[in-house]
Amino acid sequence: MGKMKAIVKEQPGLGAVWREVPIPEVGHEDILVKVEAASICGSDVHIYNWDPWSQQRVKPPMIMGHEFSGQVVEIGQAVRGIKIGDFVSAETHIVCGHCYQCRTGSSHVCQDMKILGVDRDGAFAEYIAIPAVNAVPTSRSVPPEVAAIQEPLGNAVHTVLAGEVAGRRVAVFGCGPVGALAVGVAKAAGATAVYAIDINDYRLELAKKMGANLTLNPQRDDVVTTLRELAVDRGGVDVFLEMSGSPQAVQQGLAALRNGGRASILGVYSRPVEIDWTNDIVFKGVQLQGITGRRMFETWYTAEALLSSGALDVTPLITHRLAMEDYETGFEAMRTGNTGKVVLFPRGSR
Amino acid sequence: MGKMKAIVKEQPGLGAVWREVPIPEVGHEDILVKVEAASICGSDVHIYNWDPWSQQRVKPPMIMGHEFSGQVVEIGQAVRGIKIGDFVSAETHIVCGHCYQCRTGSSHVCQDMKILGVDRDGAFAEYIAIPAVNAVPTSRSVPPEVAAIQEPLGNAVHTVLAGEVAGRRVAVFGCGPVGALAVGVAKAAGATAVYAIDINDYRLELAKKMGANLTLNPQRDDVVTTLRELAVDRGGVDVFLEMSGSPQAVQQGLAALRNGGRASILGVYSRPVEIDWTNDIVFKGVQLQGITGRRMFETWYTAEALLSSGALDVTPLITHRLAMEDYETGFEAMRTGNTGKVVLFPRGSR
Amino acid sequence: MGKMKAIVKEQPGLGAVWREVPIPEVGHEDILVKVEAASICGSDVHIYNWDPWSQQRVKPPMIMGHEFSGQVVEIGQAVRGIKIGDFVSAETHIVCGHCYQCRTGSSHVCQDMKILGVDRDGAFAEYIAIPAVNAVPTSRSVPPEVAAIQEPLGNAVHTVLAGEVAGRRVAVFGCGPVGALAVGVAKAAGATAVYAIDINDYRLELAKKMGANLTLNPQRDDVVTTLRELAVDRGGVDVFLEMSGSPQAVQQGLAALRNGGRASILGVYSRPVEIDWTNDIVFKGVQLQGITGRRMFETWYTAEALLSSGALDVTPLITHRLAMEDYETGFEAMRTGNTGKVVLFPRGSR
Amino acid sequence: MGKMKAIVKEQPGLGAVWREVPIPEVGHEDILVKVEAASICGSDVHIYNWDPWSQQRVKPPMIMGHEFSGQVVEIGQAVRGIKIGDFVSAETHIVCGHCYQCRTGSSHVCQDMKILGVDRDGAFAEYIAIPAVNAVPTSRSVPPEVAAIQEPLGNAVHTVLAGEVAGRRVAVFGCGPVGALAVGVAKAAGATAVYAIDINDYRLELAKKMGANLTLNPQRDDVVTTLRELAVDRGGVDVFLEMSGSPQAVQQGLAALRNGGRASILGVYSRPVEIDWTNDIVFKGVQLQGITGRRMFETWYTAEALLSSGALDVTPLITHRLAMEDYETGFEAMRTGNTGKVVLFPRGSR
Repeated sequence: MGKMKAIVKEQPGLGAVWREVPIPEVGHEDILVKVEAASICGSDVHIYNWDPWSQQRVKPPMIMGHEFSGQVVEIGQAVRGIKIGDFVSAETHIVCGHCYQCRTGSSHVCQDMKILGVDRDGAFAEYIAIPAVNAVPTSRSVPPEVAAIQEPLGNAVHTVLAGEVAGRRVAVFGCGPVGALAVGVAKAAGATAVYAIDINDYRLELAKKMGANLTLNPQRDDVVTTLRELAVDRGGVDVFLEMSGSPQAVQQGLAALRNGGRASILGVYSRPVEIDWTNDIVFKGVQLQGITGRRMFETWYTAEALLSSGALDVTPLITHRLAMEDYETGFEAMRTGNTGKVVLFPRGSR
Repeated sequence: MGKMKAIVKEQPGLGAVWREVPIPEVGHEDILVKVEAASICGSDVHIYNWDPWSQQRVKPPMIMGHEFSGQVVEIGQAVRGIKIGDFVSAETHIVCGHCYQCRTGSSHVCQDMKILGVDRDGAFAEYIAIPAVNAVPTSRSVPPEVAAIQEPLGNAVHTVLAGEVAGRRVAVFGCGPVGALAVGVAKAAGATAVYAIDINDYRLELAKKMGANLTLNPQRDDVVTTLRELAVDRGGVDVFLEMSGSPQAVQQGLAALRNGGRASILGVYSRPVEIDWTNDIVFKGVQLQGITGRRMFETWYTAEALLSSGALDVTPLITHRLAMEDYETGFEAMRTGNTGKVVLFPRGSR
Repeated sequence: MGKMKAIVKEQPGLGAVWREVPIPEVGHEDILVKVEAASICGSDVHIYNWDPWSQQRVKPPMIMGHEFSGQVVEIGQAVRGIKIGDFVSAETHIVCGHCYQCRTGSSHVCQDMKILGVDRDGAFAEYIAIPAVNAVPTSRSVPPEVAAIQEPLGNAVHTVLAGEVAGRRVAVFGCGPVGALAVGVAKAAGATAVYAIDINDYRLELAKKMGANLTLNPQRDDVVTTLRELAVDRGGVDVFLEMSGSPQAVQQGLAALRNGGRASILGVYSRPVEIDWTNDIVFKGVQLQGITGRRMFETWYTAEALLSSGALDVTPLITHRLAMEDYETGFEAMRTGNTGKVVLFPRGSR
Repeated sequence: MGKMKAIVKEQPGLGAVWREVPIPEVGHEDILVKVEAASICGSDVHIYNWDPWSQQRVKPPMIMGHEFSGQVVEIGQAVRGIKIGDFVSAETHIVCGHCYQCRTGSSHVCQDMKILGVDRDGAFAEYIAIPAVNAVPTSRSVPPEVAAIQEPLGNAVHTVLAGEVAGRRVAVFGCGPVGALAVGVAKAAGATAVYAIDINDYRLELAKKMGANLTLNPQRDDVVTTLRELAVDRGGVDVFLEMSGSPQAVQQGLAALRNGGRASILGVYSRPVEIDWTNDIVFKGVQLQGITGRRMFETWYTAEALLSSGALDVTPLITHRLAMEDYETGFEAMRTGNTGKVVLFPRGSR
């Protein structure tokens, strides 16, 4: 059994270490992927910071990370449909396959889900072993760092395409990487206007680069009034995408939505959200969806198609490229909030 | 111009009077209906009681009432598609016809809606004039008192059929008349089980009469645990219909819903509703809809078809039949909460 | 390795033999089911008759049959989610799991599908081995002969529930067992009227027993005119279900359909079908779906729920109950066309 | 009553005349529009040529034409929502407003529809009177000749957006103006590839200008094999749009479609279409829709939004701009098949 380098959450507390660990073993239905690029997700930062959620969920020691791409170098004996040499990214939710939801095409809401880099060893390493079923073959025309961010792109695709977009005015609340990707996806899918809202001007700039027609900062702008005026003929925007995790954003987005509009909610809230359901949900006849993960694997096919066809260019979002061992620089940058995607490259892969 | 008797909200304050008023005039696009039966809605009770909502919305003097049926006795000169002698009920929302929502098949969420018996003279009278477009021809095989409650039945139909029902387990929170009607509609549409929840045992009895497989009273039963156990294979019920107006019901219904389930919300809440959006909406991937009014006129066609075909029997719900001038008895009964539908018959119509 | 009795398609030509064969071996991901009841499908009759389709597709020797129920008596070592003693029926389409369709929740249209009793050994035997993933646990409240016909019931459920049914008028063309089951499912799902059409009066009787409001025989009745008159207010029926395999039925059903109606086509045609697409598909704005198999496994869950809840009673359809070794009697009955479902019971299982 | 010039189908037979006629009167619910641009539709050419369809449907004398834009110069006294000075295009289908389809948001399949320039006086004139409800206000940022072709653009929008497009491979059969517009709409809505098929190379060039990734000519190319190879991973293209009116195109498009794919059929066929329903519709589980007209008015809002936002540029399609009195040149060009849209401008409007 060989050795590899990996970013390991060694023990409770701040930070992580870069050290040698065994290359993972490959089960009958697994594949081994040589990682070419891996990107840092907000949840990785939570684990790095060892926040209350991490303390309750994560069991160190564990290799961190889940957004990645790489080449298949070994396959288990029961694996079909994937072969050595394939370039892949991967769905990071490991589902049970047996519950009602998994059996009816909704495994993204599996009742017994495990997550790479959260519940089991992850991708900030030279190699990762995953169930073959989770691998998503990707065109070599897509660069490794772009292929790695297909996973968060999938969140954006899932959210944006949960309803009609073409010919619609779309408000995106929260312009971190997933929100900024949602801006790009909405434009690629024919939205006639995308309005991007964030309290961080750096992120509003990212949204602009991804095609936002207008950016608004709630600390300066009257967001609800402005959105309603922009869409006064319909009484509000057609589509509200919540990707900020802020209860105020939920309130403002619903207030700015037209009667009969769509609200797709990807944000995660650290406390209960208080809403005027009577006026902002019921009387408006709102269509609202909770969005989690990516539809398996419809979302992935769509994301890959948007990238490999050139319909969507996500490279403006990749703001930091680092050697994997320089991960501390990456995590520090992430903690400022002023980054797009931070990508880590194992030695020899960049 | 002839005279007729009507229940008039004469002035601010409790109650209403039974007095003579002019028979309404019939505009070019209107019809005059001789009322055969009219039923009391919860919102009529609000106006009768002169609660804060009424004080702010209603401008006395005004004829009350909006749920009714009767025969067309006069038609305006521009009216097509309706003729004298037709037996009709009516959509009680008068829509503008010009806004985006009206122009795209969503006039139930019209931006400029008026309501019979709330914003203009209503149906607790011997005659009512309405826009011809609002009339819904009804088979004479449907008795007048049943035809009158097609309007609240429409709320139930709209809510229940906002998603799939056949083969699903459905929880109905709130078993007032609309909730109890929803129980009946869900059973008629193939729900494999309908669980009815209310704090009022009289209403739970109504729900049972309409076909509920099980009734639960939150004052006695652990509703969330029981529902989850009944649907343990899917992690919760498939469909949650909120028809109570209670914030706790929203919390409990969402908590009892399975991942990927549907929540259709008709309730009206007198205060903001606080929900754990992260766990009960987002991570569950819930499909949630605000429901208001009836889809024009799809809902009406479906309601009428369910009644005239005999697929649905709503007569167990009609608990009180009174002469219209005895309306005070009816309103008093409604105020106890222990009624199904209370139907008023103008003289000579019963 | 033990022995069992089975109905074997021994060689090309008419008929099949009842003989001893080895009990099948159980692979890592398979289960062994002791068959309690098995029913004869129309495709079994094709194979028995050795018609052109069978000659080109089936490779004797092979155990026939695919509709069945029974108890799990052995499980492979990689099997999860199914245990010894479970009462199961089974999806008879063995899918690849790797193609785009399988990966996106549409494995019923898998690009590389194998069928039990057609492409590999089937269920007319004392035991059958199947992939565990294909097993569908069924409540013991459902009798074995009813559980066995969940598979064709699934075809009916898939077809009927491919669109809205509640409050709709539905025309079912073809009242063999699947058509008659569709009649029952449509009624259970709230159809306000179901019109059943067949040239065989025996089958029209079955449809009546399953709840048809009206039966029509094209050899006596002017089907299109009658259906249009029954639904003259909408210009035709709302839903057309084609389950006969007759090109004339497709023509008549589309002609009888209203503008904007739904056509769900399960029939299999031995020759091209010629239709006036301009008037009967395009100008009508028809929504048409090809229906094959059962959605995995949504359809199965719904079928099982309809049966175990008592919402649907399919026993009127079970017209013949035979010992499995008396299969020739069953096949002869099927060849007359005058049967509902013919169920075979292995020795000791009835 | 003033006079105006118009292209009048004076009598049966080839051609039309340019002569003076009365300016139309404006009914209570009508508006009078001063035409700024009008474009020639294929159906205008049928009427000009006096083909069998025209002979049976059209009653001369009648002003021809239906695709147009212009300014409102007079409104009937009952008109609301439109005012003098508005720049409008118009829905050309005059619907009854009273049938089931009209009452349920599907007036594009109204049971009693009349068409401008076919069943009543049309738009090849200096003025046209239309029901106010048919007018579609359009941004002045859209030039008159572009606004005029919103009506055929609406056909394309209706067809393309009848299902999902983003991330899909789309085959468009028939690249006349509507087909070429469909190419543009599909690209604007995020299709990852659009394949355009026609037997006319001039039209394939138009499709290329509108963004087609690949063009195929059935007279040179093996269309079905090529499309299947381009989409071999899914077993065929995701979406098939039929806009040619050729039965062979229906056959080829269905043959090239993947299992579970979508077929949206706008073409009009002069004879019955013979298809292998078993393999190309049923076993594939195809979702097929007949498409007629434009959804009122959802399609129009979307078309207008795509144009006024700049998401879609249709100017490459406008190949001929003529004074209205030079209509014969326009019709001759149309008869060659080698045109995009031919636009006619009344005197003083260009």
